[in-house]
Amino acid sequence: MTSLSVSGHNNNPDDAQALQVVSQAQTARYTQRQLTGPQRTAALLAMAQALAVHQPAIMAANQQDLADPDVTNLPLATQNRLQLTPAKWQPVLDGLHQLAHMPDPVGQVLRQTLLDDGLTLQQQTLPLGVLLIIFEARPDVLPQVAGLALKSGNVLIAKGGTETTHTNRAILHCLQQALAPYCHPQWVQCVEGRAMVQALLAHHQGIDLVIPRGSNAMVQHIMAHTRIPVLGHADGVCHLYWHASAPLADSLAVVLDAKTQYPAACNALETLLIDATCAPVVLPQLAQAAAQAGITLTGCPQTQALLPQVALVTEWHQEYGDLTLAIKCVDTVQQAMAHIQAYGSHHTDGILAEDADTINAFLAGVDSASVFVNTSTRFADGFRYGLGAEVGISTSRTHARGPVGLQGLLTTRWVLTGQYQTVKPYACGAKSFLHKPLG
Amino acid sequence: MTSLSVSGHNNNPDDAQALQVVSQAQTARYTQRQLTGPQRTAALLAMAQALAVHQPAIMAANQQDLADPDVTNLPLATQNRLQLTPAKWQPVLDGLHQLAHMPDPVGQVLRQTLLDDGLTLQQQTLPLGVLLIIFEARPDVLPQVAGLALKSGNVLIAKGGTETTHTNRAILHCLQQALAPYCHPQWVQCVEGRAMVQALLAHHQGIDLVIPRGSNAMVQHIMAHTRIPVLGHADGVCHLYWHASAPLADSLAVVLDAKTQYPAACNALETLLIDATCAPVVLPQLAQAAAQAGITLTGCPQTQALLPQVALVTEWHQEYGDLTLAIKCVDTVQQAMAHIQAYGSHHTDGILAEDADTINAFLAGVDSASVFVNTSTRFADGFRYGLGAEVGISTSRTHARGPVGLQGLLTTRWVLTGQYQTVKPYACGAKSFLHKPLG
Repeated sequence: MTSLSVSGHNNNPDDAQALQVVSQAQTARYTQRQLTGPQRTAALLAMAQALAVHQPAIMAANQQDLADPDVTNLPLATQNRLQLTPAKWQPVLDGLHQLAHMPDPVGQVLRQTLLDDGLTLQQQTLPLGVLLIIFEARPDVLPQVAGLALKSGNVLIAKGGTETTHTNRAILHCLQQALAPYCHPQWVQCVEGRAMVQALLAHHQGIDLVIPRGSNAMVQHIMAHTRIPVLGHADGVCHLYWHASAPLADSLAVVLDAKTQYPAACNALETLLIDATCAPVVLPQLAQAAAQAGITLTGCPQTQALLPQVALVTEWHQEYGDLTLAIKCVDTVQQAMAHIQAYGSHHTDGILAEDADTINAFLAGVDSASVFVNTSTRFADGFRYGLGAEVGISTSRTHARGPVGLQGLLTTRWVLTGQYQTVKPYACGAKSFLHKPLG
Repeated sequence: MTSLSVSGHNNNPDDAQALQVVSQAQTARYTQRQLTGPQRTAALLAMAQALAVHQPAIMAANQQDLADPDVTNLPLATQNRLQLTPAKWQPVLDGLHQLAHMPDPVGQVLRQTLLDDGLTLQQQTLPLGVLLIIFEARPDVLPQVAGLALKSGNVLIAKGGTETTHTNRAILHCLQQALAPYCHPQWVQCVEGRAMVQALLAHHQGIDLVIPRGSNAMVQHIMAHTRIPVLGHADGVCHLYWHASAPLADSLAVVLDAKTQYPAACNALETLLIDATCAPVVLPQLAQAAAQAGITLTGCPQTQALLPQVALVTEWHQEYGDLTLAIKCVDTVQQAMAHIQAYGSHHTDGILAEDADTINAFLAGVDSASVFVNTSTRFADGFRYGLGAEVGISTSRTHARGPVGLQGLLTTRWVLTGQYQTVKPYACGAKSFLHKPLG
């Protein structure tokens, strides 16, 4: 029997509970994946309605969390992230309605081939199975991800931040009550405590995907401690390479947007690689614009020679998350690409240039999840890409990559429908395959 | 800087060598992915030609391996697998020519969206990067996989069986010589020794995919000892569910084909789940046909009641690899699916039935990599599916699943081409996205 047990850990109460949670999720998954698209749509609408009706109880639970001395002692910005308000709640409800009315992602036919007369092969999408979401702060993540899991036919295990334990419990209670007529009672389960997360991360046979939402440190820790595929990114060290052929005013506007529009975002610009031939013209103007925008410039020795006030960069693999912009002078597009290869995180890297050969060399050499030509790195986002709902941004090379929509929560299977054909006549050459692509 | 070092292991000479091999592969990858499709085609044809020209030297090296007392003491079947013959070599050469003339899988546009006027998004395929292939016996695997890696723009690290060390070295020498004009000298590297494999498996930041080709035990060991995604399957415990509505003679032919056509294959049938209502009619006829085909039947107590000569099955999660067929009587399609869920390996599972509701229930409930209706499980194969070259059969739920073609050696990136657009006007509502699908 396919075992979910993790050897040598079963004396720990968290391990025993994790095993139970995963077993329940596996049972629920089996029921959940048999729901039809219309059933999942109805369940999503019921979820949205219940979250609207129980909004007062959920807000009250959130107030209880916010009044805890452990929370009142946190920085104000953190407290704001923990707080649910009607202004934050309405987009969650709107998002669930939108999701309910999106096309059913499950059972889509990706490829169809007639192998031979009466022998038809389809590659179809289907739910991954069991998702584990681990999120910090922002309790509005839970209903959003529960909606995505439901739409895609998956079951969910969720671990929220301890600061909003009461809020998370209230939301979970609401979800379970509302969806009892539609789903298996364990289609969504919440767990608490770090030890529990550790125990769950060992269940690579029972959990199909981990989605971490939180600090770089948290994501890195999860990636380093599990064999379950992780959908996410530890850091976003994004670059723009400014070639001498790029127009000054337009390129400057893109650099400022990429750095300042939301500096804390993972797709914000960290390092500008500037063609040394145009640096003497560009950098003084950039310095002037940066000063007005509140940007702190840092750079390489060559940059310092042109902008003496600039501090020296000692570590290029850095995600500042603030208004710091590092500048490096490079002689060629090859040098720019080598820098991106060595110090980037394969999240989003772009070029600013009019010269076609240089653009083509950049596109041939840079294999980041998003590669941009003449536009701001801040466009790297599931909603901006038109993916509908965004599940996250992934920098892993397998499974989903870059901004990820519902497709990231799906796997595929091959369905072959025949008329009692056997392999033997094909193996001995008596019959041969047509392999005709269909529709 | 993105580090390839694996902390705390650098005193071991294998770890130091693994680090060097992975660093070289990373350098080669950077060059290799810039080759154009026509350049990769020319390289493949040169590879095929060199392997033809140097066939005598490779065969001589193989004879040297076969003469080793460690090899002459092996079972004859194993010695046959280790031996290269012209009859085995010609299909390798033919395969490389076919591969050379297949459409270029790299840089394919999977999705294209006009985000706004002058802002075009493409999702493109590109090489995964660095592949690690670990194979046992069969030295013809090396040129096959080298061809697949080359076609898909990847670089390769290969570890072959120790029994054919001289053969592997001769093939490697031939590949490196032939491809020197086209590729980076380290686009293919061979390593030797188990300790080296262990050291390489720790490099999840420098190796993108592991492809194990060998025994279940070897594949399981690799899956348990690396965080690198693994393309493969540890076991193939495949089922057919025979519903009462299935026609007797046709269904019997499918069962016999699935069990006997090549019993050692991963997609061969291991367990027949038979509808209890038709078992009294079917099983005696099956027993008669099985006896003629040399099949040994085993079964559940209910099967034993109908076929007293049959031994009791005590473990259902078993890949026999021989002419053993286990039989279990089930009352409903739900019971059949629960058995597949509990004891299967999600490789290939099928139903034999004419009743549409039962077929639909089976398709809704079984999420194996391949799910078959009224046909032999032996069709689960990349060539039979029309995928061109087969890289392997994967039972993992992320990345590629089921029989995998060249697509399994590719990842994707998003390329966004603009005219110096910034995000700000979209974020503040001054502009909105078109999200118009293109071609």
